[in-house]
Amino acid sequence: MITLKQRTSEEIYSQACEVLPGGVSRNTVFRKPYPQYAGSAAGCYITDIEGACRIDLANNMASLIHGHAHPEIIEAVYEQMKKGTAYTLASEIEVNFAQFLCDRVQGFEKIRFVNSGTEAVMAMIKASRAFTGRPKIAKAEGAYHGTYDFAEVSQTANPGNWGDINKPNSVPVAFGTPASVLDDVLIFPFNDIERTLAILDREANNIACVLIDPVPHRVGLLQATIAYIEALYHWTRKNGALLVFDEVVTFRVDYAGAQQKYAVVPDLTALGKIIGGGFPVGALAGRAEVMKVLDPRESKLLFPHSGTFSANPVTMTAGYIAMQMFDAAAVMKLNKLTSKAIQQLEEVIKIADIQASITGAGSMFRIHLTAKPPTTYREAYQSKETGAVINELLDHMYYKENILMINTFACMFSTVLTQREVDMFTEAMLRAFRLLKPKIDSLNK
Amino acid sequence: MITLKQRTSEEIYSQACEVLPGGVSRNTVFRKPYPQYAGSAAGCYITDIEGACRIDLANNMASLIHGHAHPEIIEAVYEQMKKGTAYTLASEIEVNFAQFLCDRVQGFEKIRFVNSGTEAVMAMIKASRAFTGRPKIAKAEGAYHGTYDFAEVSQTANPGNWGDINKPNSVPVAFGTPASVLDDVLIFPFNDIERTLAILDREANNIACVLIDPVPHRVGLLQATIAYIEALYHWTRKNGALLVFDEVVTFRVDYAGAQQKYAVVPDLTALGKIIGGGFPVGALAGRAEVMKVLDPRESKLLFPHSGTFSANPVTMTAGYIAMQMFDAAAVMKLNKLTSKAIQQLEEVIKIADIQASITGAGSMFRIHLTAKPPTTYREAYQSKETGAVINELLDHMYYKENILMINTFACMFSTVLTQREVDMFTEAMLRAFRLLKPKIDSLNK
Repeated sequence: MITLKQRTSEEIYSQACEVLPGGVSRNTVFRKPYPQYAGSAAGCYITDIEGACRIDLANNMASLIHGHAHPEIIEAVYEQMKKGTAYTLASEIEVNFAQFLCDRVQGFEKIRFVNSGTEAVMAMIKASRAFTGRPKIAKAEGAYHGTYDFAEVSQTANPGNWGDINKPNSVPVAFGTPASVLDDVLIFPFNDIERTLAILDREANNIACVLIDPVPHRVGLLQATIAYIEALYHWTRKNGALLVFDEVVTFRVDYAGAQQKYAVVPDLTALGKIIGGGFPVGALAGRAEVMKVLDPRESKLLFPHSGTFSANPVTMTAGYIAMQMFDAAAVMKLNKLTSKAIQQLEEVIKIADIQASITGAGSMFRIHLTAKPPTTYREAYQSKETGAVINELLDHMYYKENILMINTFACMFSTVLTQREVDMFTEAMLRAFRLLKPKIDSLNK
Repeated sequence: MITLKQRTSEEIYSQACEVLPGGVSRNTVFRKPYPQYAGSAAGCYITDIEGACRIDLANNMASLIHGHAHPEIIEAVYEQMKKGTAYTLASEIEVNFAQFLCDRVQGFEKIRFVNSGTEAVMAMIKASRAFTGRPKIAKAEGAYHGTYDFAEVSQTANPGNWGDINKPNSVPVAFGTPASVLDDVLIFPFNDIERTLAILDREANNIACVLIDPVPHRVGLLQATIAYIEALYHWTRKNGALLVFDEVVTFRVDYAGAQQKYAVVPDLTALGKIIGGGFPVGALAGRAEVMKVLDPRESKLLFPHSGTFSANPVTMTAGYIAMQMFDAAAVMKLNKLTSKAIQQLEEVIKIADIQASITGAGSMFRIHLTAKPPTTYREAYQSKETGAVINELLDHMYYKENILMINTFACMFSTVLTQREVDMFTEAMLRAFRLLKPKIDSLNK
């Protein structure tokens, strides 16, 4: 029924501009002069419709833990699809997958599935308010948590508007964000215990939850220190608030997510990305006592919540298989390969004799064009000049070296990568750094 | 990899209660004493794991316009899956599908895909604020628009809290909803021109958009009158606000959605459900000038927005095929069959000699246990007694007659239904009405 004549990416984009704002469905895929269109992808390789085949180190923004079109996932989904993709009945696979995830992570006593990371964070914030009866949330400056307006405040704060570090401004992302939304969100500097606690103390009785991504990508892909998470935990215990983690991206970091590293357990965790096995997904998991706000059997249901496609058996099937395959051994192997890549990259940085550093955790890392890695969002914040050099590096990697990275100069590895691709990647990086060394050097003058 | 031993629904639910709040992923599928688990589904039939086969008139809450597991959709999705399910690149199918939808509906100049109806409505409200720079929205009492807190205000208002009809209260759905959210949402009575305009006038300069579902299910599945929509349209023109439609459910009503009926064109429309062909989907479509707030090429991007799974090629493939098959002839045929069903139901109501009435539009209808159909949310509001009788009717239909309806006593038809199933349905309804006639009669004393 669908007949596609073979067109070039440029031709498709020209039509796309007629029907999509900016010609794209996601700003992430926007690329100058025009985005490329995918032809097909398998494992760690993606081929555009012009036939260029690239190593994929972006994995649909960290969501494909086993790369593209894993045969086991595809065949199981196909079998499920033949029995239907969504019902007005429950399905057993959602229970089995829920059990699997609750067994996997200490703090997951109950779980509810939704359709995206954005929905997961929104549901987590609403659950926190419903449990505590409080209106406000607190979050880290620069941290991305999806597009729910409360969650996105100050994600794009810049030197012109971020204000005093002791009391950062609540900066809207979308124009027209109600002032009341900004008032209901407190902003604190990530990993800065003293300032964060002082800021929280100002609204101690009104904070429903402290929202933390333990390795926030947009803050610089910096890991939250153990002392910091413990300080937040103890503050929330003392002040009747919840500590909630956004692990939509970071759940890949360790077998039980990035939270595995900490002795304290968050009350709630938002999930997404890899737990869908390549299909749209989100989830909210955590303490049974808190999750009870979602229980329709309660005489007073505090947080009524439903969703047409939530826990659909296609996503559940793909996600369950993907997470089973991402077992402790697979996590360790992937993280080891990523460590190797980082080690090789560090050598490449030395050989190229440029100023650069690497941050990250588990199977994720991000390259910064500074000799020392940033330790805060404000340090990690890129000038226009730095951004321009990074875009040149990314373009070189994409067009000349056929390697797809994330547009923050980051990589999110998949289990199907091998040492071969890592070598190709680091060798390509060496050429890119050498080529752009004069420009990189000029940033540090 | 997944080995499921055959368990009963009761056994599965028992485990589900350990890991899911209330044992369910969606409150919609909750059923006493326990929900049923789907085994498989094909066309208009769904079979639970105990083997009971039922006619499906719910179609996953109106989302499956061609019923379950349509072979053409399944095979095309399978072909796509083998090439990948989601990329950090664009894909051609999103452009073709966008073009198709823009060609189909007069007011769709540009479109952006998202992952759910909830996301679509949220994006629509954020786009309205970004375009107008205004903070408030106005919506109809009782109307369901997903789980974004601004959109859900007063969805469940009841006689104890809804207040004066001339100035209905903004009633939260979730406990802990910030007071500021309630302040930023004006509530008006659906289809009541005079009162609605008076309410809008009070905040004429602060309203970003007037949000309307043209046939709101929870209000009573009542169609907005032409005069009402025109009055809203002219008010928004005069006062610098946008008129935005929620057609997540109602897009099935006619070839170009329920909006086809009106001479005026909404500025924006939220879509979901049927346009995903059985896979998670949402979309925001409308005037190019407004949609420009999403354009990443703009020097000042007013509404930055992205989503990991937005416009993924699986959903795009399924949705495009589903909507191509739902052509003008298919829409007409489906609506005709639904009209026939309603006509037969009206005869059944007479034969059973009960007080009941039917509302709806296109392929959707809802049965009310009142002699005259309700004309407002407050009239349609069910007492506990009426609710209990409806639940008995629904249980009878489900358990004894093997027919799955929506829990509001509504049906959302699919194109794969035939006169045979319509006859089975109306004959079953006659038995149900006869059986429960004493209880139905007692409601009208």
